[in-house]
Amino acid sequence: MNIFDIKSPSDIKSLSYAQLEDLAQQIRIFLIESIAKTGGHLSSNLGVVELTLAMHYVFETPQDKFIFDVGHQSYVHKILTGRAPLFTQLRQYKGIAGFQKRKESEHDAWEAGHSSTSLSAALGMCVARDLNHASYQVVPVIGDGALTGGMAMEALNQIGSEQRNMVIIFNDNNMSISKNVGAMDETFTRLRTSKPYNTLKEDLKGALSTSKMGKSVLESMKNIKNAVKENVVDTSIFGDFNLDYIGPVDGHDIRRLIKVLEIAKRHDGPIVVHVLTKKGKGYPFAEEDKEGKWHGVSQFDPKTGCSLSRMPNGQKSWSEVISSTLCDLAKDNKDIIAITPAMKGGSKLSAFFEQFPMRSFDCGIAEEHAMTFAAGLAASGKRPFISVYSSFLQRAYDQISHDVARMDLPVVIGIDRCGLVGEDGETHHGVFDIAMLRHIPHMILAQPKDGDEAQQLLYTAFTQEHPFALRYPRGNTPFHKVDTYHPVRIGSWSMQKIMETSKLCVITYGDNVDKVISKARINGLAITVVNARFFKPLDEEMLNSICQMEEPVIIYETDMLAGGLGSAILEYANDHGYQKHFVRIGIDDHFVEHGSIPQLKKLERLDINTLCDIIASYL
Amino acid sequence: MNIFDIKSPSDIKSLSYAQLEDLAQQIRIFLIESIAKTGGHLSSNLGVVELTLAMHYVFETPQDKFIFDVGHQSYVHKILTGRAPLFTQLRQYKGIAGFQKRKESEHDAWEAGHSSTSLSAALGMCVARDLNHASYQVVPVIGDGALTGGMAMEALNQIGSEQRNMVIIFNDNNMSISKNVGAMDETFTRLRTSKPYNTLKEDLKGALSTSKMGKSVLESMKNIKNAVKENVVDTSIFGDFNLDYIGPVDGHDIRRLIKVLEIAKRHDGPIVVHVLTKKGKGYPFAEEDKEGKWHGVSQFDPKTGCSLSRMPNGQKSWSEVISSTLCDLAKDNKDIIAITPAMKGGSKLSAFFEQFPMRSFDCGIAEEHAMTFAAGLAASGKRPFISVYSSFLQRAYDQISHDVARMDLPVVIGIDRCGLVGEDGETHHGVFDIAMLRHIPHMILAQPKDGDEAQQLLYTAFTQEHPFALRYPRGNTPFHKVDTYHPVRIGSWSMQKIMETSKLCVITYGDNVDKVISKARINGLAITVVNARFFKPLDEEMLNSICQMEEPVIIYETDMLAGGLGSAILEYANDHGYQKHFVRIGIDDHFVEHGSIPQLKKLERLDINTLCDIIASYL
Repeated sequence: MNIFDIKSPSDIKSLSYAQLEDLAQQIRIFLIESIAKTGGHLSSNLGVVELTLAMHYVFETPQDKFIFDVGHQSYVHKILTGRAPLFTQLRQYKGIAGFQKRKESEHDAWEAGHSSTSLSAALGMCVARDLNHASYQVVPVIGDGALTGGMAMEALNQIGSEQRNMVIIFNDNNMSISKNVGAMDETFTRLRTSKPYNTLKEDLKGALSTSKMGKSVLESMKNIKNAVKENVVDTSIFGDFNLDYIGPVDGHDIRRLIKVLEIAKRHDGPIVVHVLTKKGKGYPFAEEDKEGKWHGVSQFDPKTGCSLSRMPNGQKSWSEVISSTLCDLAKDNKDIIAITPAMKGGSKLSAFFEQFPMRSFDCGIAEEHAMTFAAGLAASGKRPFISVYSSFLQRAYDQISHDVARMDLPVVIGIDRCGLVGEDGETHHGVFDIAMLRHIPHMILAQPKDGDEAQQLLYTAFTQEHPFALRYPRGNTPFHKVDTYHPVRIGSWSMQKIMETSKLCVITYGDNVDKVISKARINGLAITVVNARFFKPLDEEMLNSICQMEEPVIIYETDMLAGGLGSAILEYANDHGYQKHFVRIGIDDHFVEHGSIPQLKKLERLDINTLCDIIASYL
Repeated sequence: MNIFDIKSPSDIKSLSYAQLEDLAQQIRIFLIESIAKTGGHLSSNLGVVELTLAMHYVFETPQDKFIFDVGHQSYVHKILTGRAPLFTQLRQYKGIAGFQKRKESEHDAWEAGHSSTSLSAALGMCVARDLNHASYQVVPVIGDGALTGGMAMEALNQIGSEQRNMVIIFNDNNMSISKNVGAMDETFTRLRTSKPYNTLKEDLKGALSTSKMGKSVLESMKNIKNAVKENVVDTSIFGDFNLDYIGPVDGHDIRRLIKVLEIAKRHDGPIVVHVLTKKGKGYPFAEEDKEGKWHGVSQFDPKTGCSLSRMPNGQKSWSEVISSTLCDLAKDNKDIIAITPAMKGGSKLSAFFEQFPMRSFDCGIAEEHAMTFAAGLAASGKRPFISVYSSFLQRAYDQISHDVARMDLPVVIGIDRCGLVGEDGETHHGVFDIAMLRHIPHMILAQPKDGDEAQQLLYTAFTQEHPFALRYPRGNTPFHKVDTYHPVRIGSWSMQKIMETSKLCVITYGDNVDKVISKARINGLAITVVNARFFKPLDEEMLNSICQMEEPVIIYETDMLAGGLGSAILEYANDHGYQKHFVRIGIDDHFVEHGSIPQLKKLERLDINTLCDIIASYL
């Protein structure tokens, strides 16, 4: 069977085990070759090839509901639901998404890009099903990393109590994006090495053999349930949540997977199917990766495993600018501590972890806990730095407000991947954090325009006594290490005239600043460019002079308009009696789709050319 | 010993067991009599009298750090740290807080009003201690309700992995605010009924006997640890997190509590001390309470247990208006489902739970999961209503954005206790939610001015297909059931002139509307009052006419100014080319302390008299 011939999961139902195994190999080759061209999530999808095949062999979507936690491991599911031909446009503008997407297919019952939501959603679907007296199955697939996220535990607590039919596939690869951490991982290790599924007693096989016999299946359900219970090898934490458990089963053995899923499908009440998978399975570079380099990749040469993207000379990624500066500051300041919620690699904190192992903490996928852990450190006189991707920081909103800002604790929050992030799309754009944090008292919120300013602002964050959040985007910036650190005055902006006279003022921030300046120079625009490097507090002195300008003032934001920098400026201007009109450019009230950052900026009319057109219309 | 003579915990160190028991009785009587006069958290504090005495007997604050999860059970701790004389002003304006407060006492190492933060903070303190080569103990006290909150589980995962010295007191009263729910509660029940502490082997006592001997204690630590391990009765879920466990111990037996805490204090690594307490212990009315009526109380007669607060005739609490309307709507609309994160009583959902048991869900203290559970239901065609206190809704910010709004699912969110809440203070004021939700696409956000409008808006929420959040405050409102429901046009405001001519316009919302109208009538103010019942979307037509008014326009908000309604209006006015100045009244950039709502409104210059003065200054 050719994967391009698959129109729906029913096409694989009649395949033999051998044919399924052959299909698995085809899919694996396809994934590697296709993702090598488009970029995307590789390792996690290579890990679930057989599992997804078995799921579609046993269950019937769209009646049965598959919910892939975090969503990025749904590529095989997409292939088996007729979307293989669309992979040339994977994660690209107007192409298929890198996550489950309800509007893409009736087989996509749910959407997620953030971790640990699948069990809650699944329980909602189970309750709806039961109230409607329907009988479909709900099948969340959750990894061991996501399972340690707090809301997954909250869901287990209610799932165990409700006892509704649900097949929880515990996709255990002993990894989050990188190596897993935490006490539960040790527990899972005990499970992994416990008596495997293939030693289950004969009565289980007997019960299973009746599974194709229609009504008698119902009658034998009780027998199956007892068989499962008797054969449970070690319920561990799942037992504490009153969940039945079966496994562990080799996640790359299709035959066994199908058998176990057949049992689970007919099981009464919630059951956890423990599936052992290998991230990156079948692609040696990815199999050996312990740091998550093969988790999400850009274009690469499938033969050599070498990335085809090149870092421009003299540049560093923003994450690396911040983390290398942190390393430098930590040499002198023994109180600096680095914290990551399972993003050591992505946040480029590996070097800090190596240099300062006693002052480095990976909290797992647990943004809420990680933030309050930082607050506890700060309350004890330490100077924690916690790096979180903007979109995931949304998980810690209450902890930032209630635990950090309310007690005015000097936690430094590195907001990585702020602004549009590109191909990961809707669930990952970091465009809300300014509006999310600006109304929280005591917060300081800043964004550097370049590598130099990043170093000085991070230094500044550690010289003062309040919560300090520093945003920086995906991508690179020119970098050289500054000679000396000096504190930046909190709330200060800077202003630059392009020519001697100025006929228009653009207020912007981050790497927009130099882009606007450079474009204005090229085009000979008589404008003033303001680097609003602090969103909070504002530079009131400079704002007073801006509000009194007669020329047009454009506020150029690359984040949400509502509640953002422009909103702050409007509040200030109004409350101080200025009647100044501002031209506001930014993202209006909608979620932004996926695509390359330049494409999305153009789509949202946030690109520099559009800005220049707007400037031109006022000059 | 008289409790008013206690200046610091050292004053109780020399007491005999009998004297400690006598002191416990005094404290209990004092709590009942004092809280009867001031109101406050009664049941939880009555439950921890002996426990707190034992903690202060065994540990040395402020060197050792006590962290009371959720903080409202710290009254006994306050008494034992010299604050008994201040209880006449408990929770009152400028009086002592109802929670731990760092500025109140050096014995208050942490602050919280939200649940499940103590373990994360404790780990932060342990890490800081170890990096400083200090040796104090860190003692979080967490209830069985709070322990099921996701971030507590996230913390356990790291605590078990870090293996630092920490004494986790598991205060198990089988209750949250009301009866506990969830699978873990069943697990805890197995623990509760397991072999109790007093059957521990003799070698434990042997090890304990060395505890006063200084250096030899260190040498015998290993013996103690082994003894604890051997005597562990059922580690249950704590074992899964790699935590040592001792208990259960009777939480009202001071002698045993002291012995167990002495062991735990010298234990190497983190240990869970399982303490069985009874909420309301010693006060029969509170002991028998299963619904949380005695959790937080207003003034009452200690003899009869009768509340001294009276509901005015013809009024209902806002929570009750919403929940009774929900019951009414649910009769016709079989898809309506009610969800509460452990606030069935506070949100007045008990009647719904009784009438529609199959459509009622208490998710436990788990706002994150509860919100995504609602999203799962909505994705399956159901019409979930989830009621959450505004301040606690902050926990679900990401779930509202990523799971509900991004997929544009019709979840109806009841935001209870919005605005200033009074005596609970900083951690509980619901003044952030407008700014928190306004920038999230697809959200509709409204607040009714009275009971009638509440009914119509709730009805409206179920007639449309988007996420719809409805705010309502603490307190009461005149109520009669409406004859017929009719949908309110989404985004529509209403406007009322007090006299024939109008010289000033006040835009406000919620119960401010009728207060302003009534005061304007009494004072004969020639103003127009706008009921901005939708914060999002705005009434653009009405705003167009307001922006063109020549008379002054006041935006009167009783929530945060930054990012709130006024901010939305300024954005609209600016972006539509109006150069209109608005007088903005609201809460500026700080956390608001505790006190009665009228006192706080006056303090914040948000009271109606201040408003009238401001109006007068413009007329």
